[in-house]
Amino acid sequence: MSERSGGVNEWRGHVAVLGAGSWGTAFAKILADAGRDVTIWARRQRVADTLLAERRNPEYLPGLVLPGRVTATADAAEAITGAELVVLAVPSQTLRANLAGWAGYLHPDATLVSLMKGIELGTTRRMSEVIVETAGVTADRVVVVSGPNLAPEIAAEQPAATVVAGTDSRRTALVQSSIRTPYLRPYTNDDVVGCELGGAVKNVIALAYGIATAMGFGDNTRAMLMTRGLAETARLGVALGADPITFAGLAGMGDLVASCSSPLARNRTFGEHLGRGETLEQAQTATRQTAEGVKSCLAIRDLARTHGVEMPITEQVERICHEGMDPRLAVDTLMSRTAKPESYE
Amino acid sequence: MSERSGGVNEWRGHVAVLGAGSWGTAFAKILADAGRDVTIWARRQRVADTLLAERRNPEYLPGLVLPGRVTATADAAEAITGAELVVLAVPSQTLRANLAGWAGYLHPDATLVSLMKGIELGTTRRMSEVIVETAGVTADRVVVVSGPNLAPEIAAEQPAATVVAGTDSRRTALVQSSIRTPYLRPYTNDDVVGCELGGAVKNVIALAYGIATAMGFGDNTRAMLMTRGLAETARLGVALGADPITFAGLAGMGDLVASCSSPLARNRTFGEHLGRGETLEQAQTATRQTAEGVKSCLAIRDLARTHGVEMPITEQVERICHEGMDPRLAVDTLMSRTAKPESYE
Repeated sequence: MSERSGGVNEWRGHVAVLGAGSWGTAFAKILADAGRDVTIWARRQRVADTLLAERRNPEYLPGLVLPGRVTATADAAEAITGAELVVLAVPSQTLRANLAGWAGYLHPDATLVSLMKGIELGTTRRMSEVIVETAGVTADRVVVVSGPNLAPEIAAEQPAATVVAGTDSRRTALVQSSIRTPYLRPYTNDDVVGCELGGAVKNVIALAYGIATAMGFGDNTRAMLMTRGLAETARLGVALGADPITFAGLAGMGDLVASCSSPLARNRTFGEHLGRGETLEQAQTATRQTAEGVKSCLAIRDLARTHGVEMPITEQVERICHEGMDPRLAVDTLMSRTAKPESYE
Repeated sequence: MSERSGGVNEWRGHVAVLGAGSWGTAFAKILADAGRDVTIWARRQRVADTLLAERRNPEYLPGLVLPGRVTATADAAEAITGAELVVLAVPSQTLRANLAGWAGYLHPDATLVSLMKGIELGTTRRMSEVIVETAGVTADRVVVVSGPNLAPEIAAEQPAATVVAGTDSRRTALVQSSIRTPYLRPYTNDDVVGCELGGAVKNVIALAYGIATAMGFGDNTRAMLMTRGLAETARLGVALGADPITFAGLAGMGDLVASCSSPLARNRTFGEHLGRGETLEQAQTATRQTAEGVKSCLAIRDLARTHGVEMPITEQVERICHEGMDPRLAVDTLMSRTAKPESYE
């Protein structure tokens, strides 16, 4: 624990980025390029040291050198204390445990920014809900940033757009101005539920896209999967109070399209292993990780069942991942469903 | 003129497909596979002869052999007379002239099915409006079929979905059942305006996508172009009375994604030539055609201006195509616009 965390929680007005994975690191670059002072927290001391000494994170974004406004630490309290914005960029399923240890260092007026795209297993909570519960803050203090933002392309300053979603317009405007750079165009939106669901379910649909790609299906089939996948996401969203139009936007369609199109995206790649007939274990061994959609599909299926929403693509992905179902059977099942009106509710 | 056209317009209950391009030909296969008797009209006698003798259309879909239920003619009156469904699959800008010569052969209860994706130059009319005006039929007799349906993949029986849009539920159900096959899943929708605009504007956005691809932009930028392109399509749609949700569906996002993703799609390919710095004339020479979006962007820009709708991507595509604007300037212009709320209206 740092000395600062033990003292008065004085306002320093900087931004803390908690998590030094590829998106956390790229987001620190954005903030610095927009004129903010940034402290990145890395779980591993070695990563923090390299960030501090070289302003680089070679494991995740080898080509990037961060601007001088970025500093780093392995002490979360040091990063959080006095921060105006606290950006959460840790793995979804670790958020609750991490944040429980950090909540005491938050400045009373700090805005919490979620970059995470997942649904908590067991509780079926969205990330902003986990933040509210764990940090003991009101929901208006949480802002979600989500959109088609593959980190390596952001690091290379490829033009991109994103969505800043929150219910307090002062805080969303603050986040928007803190990440506006010549290469990133942030749009505001007040539909937190829709933006979070879009980001979480797209991981599941990207798995389906990868499976279909490896099975040799063409662009018609894959466009159908993406579109009907977005439709079932929107149906769940509407049941949870989201605006269906959000799913046609950057945090819905935009993020889905980028994650499916990029051959480097993790969920799509993981799906390709499954589509070649590998088991979950074989795919995990080959990719050295478990894609987020593999975990989230269980929580999303549970959410859908609780709310009586049909999510046929998510159901099939869950069966392929966790019940060893043959992907070829899944395609037959999806295509033989009754033809019906196109609908989102 | 055939003998039949001069006589009583007796009900034969077959389907006439007018136009033997790749989509008309693939659509004839779908209809036949769904159990309908089909007569294709080809403008060129030679194409009709090959279709009749070999049930093949080697120029457009070399691998396909059509089912036995398909016949062909170069006499439009012969195809149309007594048909229950008259499917229009001619180039958009030729529809008015073609249909003017055909209207007299229509059975009084025939349903007219439009497969065309364009806006008429000069009049800014959608294809269903041109049909109503030219054939002198009521709007409820027109059904639009649109979705992510690249013809070569349909011919190969890759699983796909499409939208059947019309205001008369009996006619949409008739078309739906006439094209339901194990590889095609047709959804009904009553939003004709939305489905037609989705199909027309996607050609323009696919040009932008091709331009961006050739300029080296990555998946974030291209996902942004698709999503913001769909948002401006939806804004125009809402101004014309469409349901914004239609644009998140198969005839909106679905068709757009398929047309952008496929390296073989015509508008995307044409855009790639422009993105490499070629002039419109050079791109036309290289591709031996003018992509539909090159024409439609003028009509869509005019429609947008008439209705006071901002369509920044369409405006830039129009300037690149018809005013010789440098694509690099277009990107700068799009990224420097004021950041604002994400909105569809």
